[in-house]
Amino acid sequence: MASNKITLRVENALHRHLKGRDQPPRLGQAINHALFPGGARVRPSFALGVALACGDDRPAVSDALAAAVEFLHCASLVHDDLPCFDNAEMRRGKLSVHCAFDEPIALLAGDALIVMAFQALSDVAADAGDRLPTLLSAICQSAGTPHGLVAGQAMEGEPQTVLGAYHAAKTGALFEAAAVGGAAAAGGDIAVWRRVGARLGTAYQIADDIHDCVGNAADATNHGKPIGQDALHGRPNAVAMHGIAGAVSLLKSTLAEAVTLVPDGDGAEALRGLIDRQAARFLPKSLVSVAA
Amino acid sequence: MASNKITLRVENALHRHLKGRDQPPRLGQAINHALFPGGARVRPSFALGVALACGDDRPAVSDALAAAVEFLHCASLVHDDLPCFDNAEMRRGKLSVHCAFDEPIALLAGDALIVMAFQALSDVAADAGDRLPTLLSAICQSAGTPHGLVAGQAMEGEPQTVLGAYHAAKTGALFEAAAVGGAAAAGGDIAVWRRVGARLGTAYQIADDIHDCVGNAADATNHGKPIGQDALHGRPNAVAMHGIAGAVSLLKSTLAEAVTLVPDGDGAEALRGLIDRQAARFLPKSLVSVAA
Repeated sequence: MASNKITLRVENALHRHLKGRDQPPRLGQAINHALFPGGARVRPSFALGVALACGDDRPAVSDALAAAVEFLHCASLVHDDLPCFDNAEMRRGKLSVHCAFDEPIALLAGDALIVMAFQALSDVAADAGDRLPTLLSAICQSAGTPHGLVAGQAMEGEPQTVLGAYHAAKTGALFEAAAVGGAAAAGGDIAVWRRVGARLGTAYQIADDIHDCVGNAADATNHGKPIGQDALHGRPNAVAMHGIAGAVSLLKSTLAEAVTLVPDGDGAEALRGLIDRQAARFLPKSLVSVAA
Repeated sequence: MASNKITLRVENALHRHLKGRDQPPRLGQAINHALFPGGARVRPSFALGVALACGDDRPAVSDALAAAVEFLHCASLVHDDLPCFDNAEMRRGKLSVHCAFDEPIALLAGDALIVMAFQALSDVAADAGDRLPTLLSAICQSAGTPHGLVAGQAMEGEPQTVLGAYHAAKTGALFEAAAVGGAAAAGGDIAVWRRVGARLGTAYQIADDIHDCVGNAADATNHGKPIGQDALHGRPNAVAMHGIAGAVSLLKSTLAEAVTLVPDGDGAEALRGLIDRQAARFLPKSLVSVAA
């Protein structure tokens, strides 16, 4: 399935599982602001790519899992942008939720989006049948403690943080949920896909660290993110730890591992292509020659 | 089952489903601070009372549901206390989470507690079997939008709020989840218990409104809550709307409805007793003669 068809499926899934939950009105507007228009939708697209590589025999279930992953991602962005964390005014080229609305509504929009991830699974519980426990477990693990998004964000404020554990929780966990959940939604083997997801998550976080150190806020590949945030907030960063050449080299080898780990079968080539296309968007233009 | 046995089950269930999730360290400490020592544990006790009235043939599942309900309740308290909402320094006679720790950790502790509600269900997914979808749905509905805790909190900031809808979302939804989930965990009939939960939730919210208007912060029945918050924050309040006598009368009739709706059977009398004992704690001492 072509990449743009996957993108369309993701948008439709988000709207389907949002339906009826955009109330009360101001909260609903804030949730919409956080979700649309989206970024690259990397995580839910990856989830659907994995589901397709596993046969995707229950597309409503894989759609719900993809929506759940993106709801969690957007929840983490809304909360991370709040004044007590990054105090970010802009996100995806427009005002962050607390700047467009206010802090209470942004806090609640993040809370609502966390719950919406589970509501999406609840919506397809009957169709998911005996796959529901694995989907629920995957989303729980990626969201919470001790190894999910919330734990990763908390590690930023801990006195001692190990870079690997921080990256695994802050970014890796959701890629892993996309992989494991995408496979589980289609009745696929989970263990192998967990490894693919973990590698891709690590690659994505290294790319993010590189952006933060050497990116250009005006660079289209940067998706409107502010730069220099890690140094500003004293957060662990792969470039600070390995240097720019070391970080780029690590990114390349990690991505290659992810692609190699994709098991052969129908949909495997399409998924490798999806990963390659998304990877091409990872690096700032100034570094593409370094990475080639 | 005696009330103190139910209380012990609730505490054990909270510890069991917290286990391994109190990381990273500061976040773990904040989550513990939010959970222990608890308040009256009204909601999870009610959930177990309903499960017992339905036979409670899978106690590990009803324990998980009870824990999920209390995790959500504590999450809402932690977020409601934050500076951008009530800016409350004290909760249950000790510092609120953001005062004992800091605002970022309190925000994340609330997020983690929301996820932990779903993790508790995930922990018992195999045992729950075909009851899992109903449990998941009950917890989702009580937590999120359009009718759950998050929606209720958001209604405080909406220009037009209907008192009944606000109470139903802010308080009723979690009592309903306790009733529906307690019944579902034990394979009981859901519809009848939903009505019991809704009435009890309404009663509890009216009692809370009365406390807020005429309570004494030093009164033991007040559980250390500050008073006068509704007027301060411009929130809907039953006493402001119906007067003190009207609100007390409404509380009495609503509680009587809840008790009458409890279906006959093993455990029904025990549950009616539990509701009566908890109801006796509802009113400030100065009003007990009014309510008798």
